[in-house]
Amino acid sequence: MAKVAVLGYGTVGSGIVEVINTNQELIAKRVGCPVEVKYILDLRDFPGDPYENLVVHDVDVIMNDPEVEIVCEAMGGTGAAYAFTKAALSKGKSVCTSNKALVAEYGTELIELAKANKCNYLFEASCGGGIPIIRPLRTSLSPEKIVAIKGILNGTTNYILTRMEQEGADFDSVLKDAQALGYAEANPEADVEGHDACRKIAILSSLGFGKTVYYKDVYTEGITKIAMEDFAYMKQLKATIKLLGMSREVDGEYFAMVAPFVLTRENPLYNVDDVMNAILVTGNTLGDTMYYGAGAGKLPTASAVVSDVLECVLHKGIHLSSNWAPEKLALADAALAEWKFFVRVPKADEAKIQQTFGEVKMLESVKDGEAAFVTPVMSEKVYKEKAASLDVISMIRMEG
Amino acid sequence: MAKVAVLGYGTVGSGIVEVINTNQELIAKRVGCPVEVKYILDLRDFPGDPYENLVVHDVDVIMNDPEVEIVCEAMGGTGAAYAFTKAALSKGKSVCTSNKALVAEYGTELIELAKANKCNYLFEASCGGGIPIIRPLRTSLSPEKIVAIKGILNGTTNYILTRMEQEGADFDSVLKDAQALGYAEANPEADVEGHDACRKIAILSSLGFGKTVYYKDVYTEGITKIAMEDFAYMKQLKATIKLLGMSREVDGEYFAMVAPFVLTRENPLYNVDDVMNAILVTGNTLGDTMYYGAGAGKLPTASAVVSDVLECVLHKGIHLSSNWAPEKLALADAALAEWKFFVRVPKADEAKIQQTFGEVKMLESVKDGEAAFVTPVMSEKVYKEKAASLDVISMIRMEG
Repeated sequence: MAKVAVLGYGTVGSGIVEVINTNQELIAKRVGCPVEVKYILDLRDFPGDPYENLVVHDVDVIMNDPEVEIVCEAMGGTGAAYAFTKAALSKGKSVCTSNKALVAEYGTELIELAKANKCNYLFEASCGGGIPIIRPLRTSLSPEKIVAIKGILNGTTNYILTRMEQEGADFDSVLKDAQALGYAEANPEADVEGHDACRKIAILSSLGFGKTVYYKDVYTEGITKIAMEDFAYMKQLKATIKLLGMSREVDGEYFAMVAPFVLTRENPLYNVDDVMNAILVTGNTLGDTMYYGAGAGKLPTASAVVSDVLECVLHKGIHLSSNWAPEKLALADAALAEWKFFVRVPKADEAKIQQTFGEVKMLESVKDGEAAFVTPVMSEKVYKEKAASLDVISMIRMEG
Repeated sequence: MAKVAVLGYGTVGSGIVEVINTNQELIAKRVGCPVEVKYILDLRDFPGDPYENLVVHDVDVIMNDPEVEIVCEAMGGTGAAYAFTKAALSKGKSVCTSNKALVAEYGTELIELAKANKCNYLFEASCGGGIPIIRPLRTSLSPEKIVAIKGILNGTTNYILTRMEQEGADFDSVLKDAQALGYAEANPEADVEGHDACRKIAILSSLGFGKTVYYKDVYTEGITKIAMEDFAYMKQLKATIKLLGMSREVDGEYFAMVAPFVLTRENPLYNVDDVMNAILVTGNTLGDTMYYGAGAGKLPTASAVVSDVLECVLHKGIHLSSNWAPEKLALADAALAEWKFFVRVPKADEAKIQQTFGEVKMLESVKDGEAAFVTPVMSEKVYKEKAASLDVISMIRMEG
């Protein structure tokens, strides 16, 4: 019998209890013993809830119960969640979480703490919700030198961009709709400004490249400036616009960035629409593999947490080695990364385009008074120097 | 130091040696010790090959060397490969393979033999080449009751179907081209008749559903009857045709089948083109996840074998539990599975369509003298009874 405590009885926490109970029998068969939720920590009571008798308000009840081997942290944030995670790991209790903010901020320290206490800090659910990506990176891709990770890592922004494309609608009106439908938060900043995707690509890059990528070092741009006119040009390019978290190694230098990108139809990420997420990982001998699924949602996220719980049950007393070392990865200046650039400028600047950028691909204008083009591949630094003489309306990087 | 022997120095075998040597340093770091190829078994000599001095012709050299912990079986077939795999497992040496024929035929027995000898029989590379799918099924999806597995599991047929669609070409001419380009074998039967996909879906279903699905029990149809006219109708349906290996549970009954299917644009598998493979797995709480990548190829396949090797190094003396039990899964009669059907009949039969099938979706005819339509959802048994009065030119099942 393995006893589990769930910290936080909100969406993910209650999902964890539901997954463990719904699939009780098959879980017991797969790990060789029953897995049972012994406590649920929450400040609230839940009268009438089928698990109300498991609710405790004092975290020490959990920490001091030697029967509890595994703690699921579903509180979110970097305050109490951080303190409770440290407390659990210090006592040799493994912690499984979906809390990307905590993993991105303190992952390095918490992994080391788990190692020192022969237990595990696992966070499959922190990136891509229910999509298996952390564990494949750690195990299936273990013989690979990871050279690139590119992901649609945020469902809210992907939903907004998909609707902007399909309806020719503008950002503000789609955002309002998304908020009304519950797909976007009342305060949508963490999603639309790319902060959420930034934490996720930092976590994935730390695992992929084997050193700590700190999220604050990742250049991050959101989707608030994407206009319906930008999408209007995409048909000519047989492309779409997606918010990507991406990192890659080029000649020994590491780049990481969150930004909207133009993706052409050949890109496996092109067709990932609505709230779905996908992550494309490139290994040096394997080439591309992609992982696709629900990037959020109660049960998918909970299922990912429970997959970590079962791994802890199967590896009691064994710290599972991870490729995420404490040493910090020095990221190269994002301005040195090379792309093609999709650019819109006022009609008045049209004459200057060729003379500034050389051979560009001119697009048919979709709006009076403006011209649009695609530059050759160049570094962002060079692009900016050239573009300084133009009154740029919008610029979006092009992937691949 | 972990010592490995590679059986068979063909495409996959030489790829395994290449992956282990190319990524030597990072592999040593990840598993905590160097991993080295000690022997290569082949009947041939390889003068001038950088590893020619590792080549042996007598398998007993490998079996009797206690230093060899792990054997990579890259011989293929079910003859000597079977005998050597049994010999290795009996001596407690783990075996990692890409040999889907052997896994589909003797997987149950070989897993049990590995269990009895506290070692492992792993076959990540047997399905989907370099795509991580076996390990995610075993670990990431461990809390899930798998309800469906649907995969584009064969690169050759997917390449042929993609070109038929894109060029409006017929099967025979594309097959000839594919053979000239090396994408199809001189004897293409195993691919185009679905036998290869059949073995793979049998393996995946055994792991997903937890009991042995024997490949000979899986109803299998290839793509040789798909005509360019079939593709001509796909635009009207906003759909394409793909060869799927699929299995699913419906109300406690298990169905498995390999056949061409009509997939609409909403299906995540719709966009998987050319030689790429992808597998869509549905869990009861997780919903859909999809795994995409190169389904074949020297290095991707070899990388998957090496990922198994590294798992064996990390779990020396420990048998990794698998969800594939020896008990045979009773498959329901494929004729009871329910689909919509895309059907072409002679123009002369048009009057009979509505009266036979009730409310159908009629398509605009793309060829003189024929009519095409889509039936409502019904079992294949019922479809066949109704279709008996028509002179059906072609029928393709529709997925989803």
